[in-house]
Amino acid sequence: MQNLTQLKERLADIHNINTAMALLNWDQQTYMPPGGANIRAAQFGTLSKIAHEMFVSPETGRLLAAAEAEGKDLDYDSDDAALLRVARRDYDQETKIPTDLVVEFAQVTTLAYEEWHKARANNDYAHFAPWLSKIIDLNRRRAEYLGYTDHPYDALLDLFEPGMKTAQVKTIFDELKAAQIPLVHAIASQIDTVDNAILKRDYDEKKQEAFGIEVAKRLGYDFQRGRLDRAVHPFTNGTGRGDVRITTRYNRHWLPESLFGTIHESGHALYEQGTGESLENTLLGTGASLGIHESQSRLWENLVGRSLGFWKFFFPRLREVFPEALHDVDLETFYRAINRVEPSLIRVEADEVTYNLHIIIRFEMELGLLSGEISVADAPAAWNAKYQEYLGVTPPDDAKGILQDVHWSGGAMGYFPTYTLGNLMSVQFFNKAVQEIPTIPAQIERGEFGDLLAWLQRNIYVHGRKYLPAELVQRVTGGPMQAGPYIAYLRQKYGAIYAL
Amino acid sequence: MQNLTQLKERLADIHNINTAMALLNWDQQTYMPPGGANIRAAQFGTLSKIAHEMFVSPETGRLLAAAEAEGKDLDYDSDDAALLRVARRDYDQETKIPTDLVVEFAQVTTLAYEEWHKARANNDYAHFAPWLSKIIDLNRRRAEYLGYTDHPYDALLDLFEPGMKTAQVKTIFDELKAAQIPLVHAIASQIDTVDNAILKRDYDEKKQEAFGIEVAKRLGYDFQRGRLDRAVHPFTNGTGRGDVRITTRYNRHWLPESLFGTIHESGHALYEQGTGESLENTLLGTGASLGIHESQSRLWENLVGRSLGFWKFFFPRLREVFPEALHDVDLETFYRAINRVEPSLIRVEADEVTYNLHIIIRFEMELGLLSGEISVADAPAAWNAKYQEYLGVTPPDDAKGILQDVHWSGGAMGYFPTYTLGNLMSVQFFNKAVQEIPTIPAQIERGEFGDLLAWLQRNIYVHGRKYLPAELVQRVTGGPMQAGPYIAYLRQKYGAIYAL
Repeated sequence: MQNLTQLKERLADIHNINTAMALLNWDQQTYMPPGGANIRAAQFGTLSKIAHEMFVSPETGRLLAAAEAEGKDLDYDSDDAALLRVARRDYDQETKIPTDLVVEFAQVTTLAYEEWHKARANNDYAHFAPWLSKIIDLNRRRAEYLGYTDHPYDALLDLFEPGMKTAQVKTIFDELKAAQIPLVHAIASQIDTVDNAILKRDYDEKKQEAFGIEVAKRLGYDFQRGRLDRAVHPFTNGTGRGDVRITTRYNRHWLPESLFGTIHESGHALYEQGTGESLENTLLGTGASLGIHESQSRLWENLVGRSLGFWKFFFPRLREVFPEALHDVDLETFYRAINRVEPSLIRVEADEVTYNLHIIIRFEMELGLLSGEISVADAPAAWNAKYQEYLGVTPPDDAKGILQDVHWSGGAMGYFPTYTLGNLMSVQFFNKAVQEIPTIPAQIERGEFGDLLAWLQRNIYVHGRKYLPAELVQRVTGGPMQAGPYIAYLRQKYGAIYAL
Repeated sequence: MQNLTQLKERLADIHNINTAMALLNWDQQTYMPPGGANIRAAQFGTLSKIAHEMFVSPETGRLLAAAEAEGKDLDYDSDDAALLRVARRDYDQETKIPTDLVVEFAQVTTLAYEEWHKARANNDYAHFAPWLSKIIDLNRRRAEYLGYTDHPYDALLDLFEPGMKTAQVKTIFDELKAAQIPLVHAIASQIDTVDNAILKRDYDEKKQEAFGIEVAKRLGYDFQRGRLDRAVHPFTNGTGRGDVRITTRYNRHWLPESLFGTIHESGHALYEQGTGESLENTLLGTGASLGIHESQSRLWENLVGRSLGFWKFFFPRLREVFPEALHDVDLETFYRAINRVEPSLIRVEADEVTYNLHIIIRFEMELGLLSGEISVADAPAAWNAKYQEYLGVTPPDDAKGILQDVHWSGGAMGYFPTYTLGNLMSVQFFNKAVQEIPTIPAQIERGEFGDLLAWLQRNIYVHGRKYLPAELVQRVTGGPMQAGPYIAYLRQKYGAIYAL
């Protein structure tokens, strides 16, 4: 297995460069002084170039082919067999796109990001439109190089959710739409039966931070292998199971911002911290896909963190921390407040019931833009019409409409569906855990999360990136990804809250 | 100049990898969770290997030789000419030592560092002795490969203070000894005329930090291009003029720890922040040598920060911050306390008058160990005898004696002299600045440091690593490095404090 050994050394070097860049990115978003931007850009330029060149070099291809021959009898579930599968996927993906296009993509998106910022600030879609055209064109070309059998969107989706197909997403999303649009409309008529004004009272930021740390620790987040810092755009930085850092932001007059933000990032972090020890410092030592990752942030944030049982344990504690803000609030009122539904314009502020509709709109927009059925010029009108149809609201301007998300300006098309796929899988996984360990809900009411975490670690986290998302869902739940469980979860939970 | 252009690109890539490692090191010493150690080691392993391989590759050698031919008519003072000189120095140094020895050196010192830690903790010199032998042997071999004409120590010294010779250091140190030993003995007889108990009162750490930031800002340290954090072993992390971070540590009952530590690191940082804009992201964008760097940390710490004029401005402010601790203390008492002299055992706690003697002992020990005149077995006795002779104190054990410093365990021999060379140059530079701008002392009394900083930037900082230390001293002072000005400074300042 000499070639396999050499391949592993080479991939480890590339991985180490990538994790160094992840740390540089964490630093840039937390502690880097403003004057460091030029140096940081130069560091990223050099490191990304070296990592890319090492990975797509003919030597890597030669070692990979030779190692595949050596490893053809390896057990499918072994680390080495998985490494070969994942390396092959990544290698083919990175080598199929010619360097010219990679460079052009990087140049255009760097500029497009700046121009999008200006366009959003000035509510000037026309300013961004030519950049959006360029990005659509680049993605079309990217899809052609990557290859697909059915739809060019398959090639893009595959970059973020390996193995997932457009047709499958469309089927699932149509089922969701058929269920969620009527649910949203039903709730909209009695939106005022739930009030969340109590969450806008005065919540000291330092106390929010301390409470967030207390919750994260109790969930099982290991501060010996992580830390919590502030960031303008919260994220989880995983460089391997030994160092998984979370970030959050605080709003003195909007408690959910840090509270559920911290639980959400803790969910991502529990996943990374739970990857197998043997996978550390290899490209398998992270999550299986964006969708699977999101399933974990959402499971902990929503299935656990927004459940009544969770607050049976934590609400008395929260009231101790914020006696003034919560002196006249009871558990039921608090639970209803944190689960208030309101059809709104902004994705990142959306509740569980409306969130998927925001995503479905973006998915449909991307399909239309890529196929040409929606022109760049007509895109804002198409966007607004979908918001009116699905959510019953119309953006007053493009800044609160089609310009709200950063993703397209960075070149990412095919990314959005992973948010909703994560939501669906969060319920499938949670249901399975409860089916196998029926005491989990009762444990949550006592602030005990060890059995749930151990189950997730054993069934999902430990495997890191060894399996494709569909393989993982099959292994864990015994079936494919499905919309049904999520719809049932929404109907049950929100049917109770809104007395539908 | 095609080869020069290509060389610059290659050197920039190497430099960017090195600055990325500097940031990883800063993170390791400030915010990295304990669990991140394995990942960090893997990152350092990969990045140092790649940077080294890129630098010593035949392609770098070819480009360097071709660029030197292209640039033979470049103005000596131009950035490009300096880059070629420095690159040649570094390249010859790195390529002269065979890879086997580099690897052996890294392996031995990694282990030796661990063993030194244990030996010091257990006060067990015999445990460290075999490692010290290995390190002496490695340094002898290193010196042979590097080459020298007079003394093998020249080759080692040159790694830290380019161009400096052992004979020159010896002459300077003998002159210092002749002056400083009698001065120390004269002060020792009236050591109790100055008391520093007031510095051991209760000083809140948060207030120490705020005051340190206030002082650093006033000196001219730019927090838009830097930041202050805590570290167990304070250091300055420069990755280029745009991002120069300082660290410090706090002792609630020993005010000088953070106070002068912060000013000391600010001095290093002012130097790095002052390097020329055109040098950013090149290997010239840092200090000229360890000695020149130390001249700046010491200039700001001692010549400025421990002067009576400085405290004429800052003492009233300090008393506002610590009204309880300082209510019964006047300026003169405070000034004498922070300048108390006491012959002691530990280098890092030494005052201005005794510090150089600690260094001279180490220099003489290193010369003796390398030549074999002092055996490893006899080294503790030799160490203790020198402490008795020069400082009038004898270590009670080796932990407080020969085991106190980390440097040898890391393989560094030839490093220590740079501390004292820095002290000497700090006075030479400061005197020259005052000679050219006689109002500087009066400005310092008003808390104004702009003229001094601008003079240092103009004459020293802006050049970065373009000139050798001796060239820089010649350019700035019109003469060579000298002991005389430092001796005069000590006699004048401490003669007054101790009424000699």
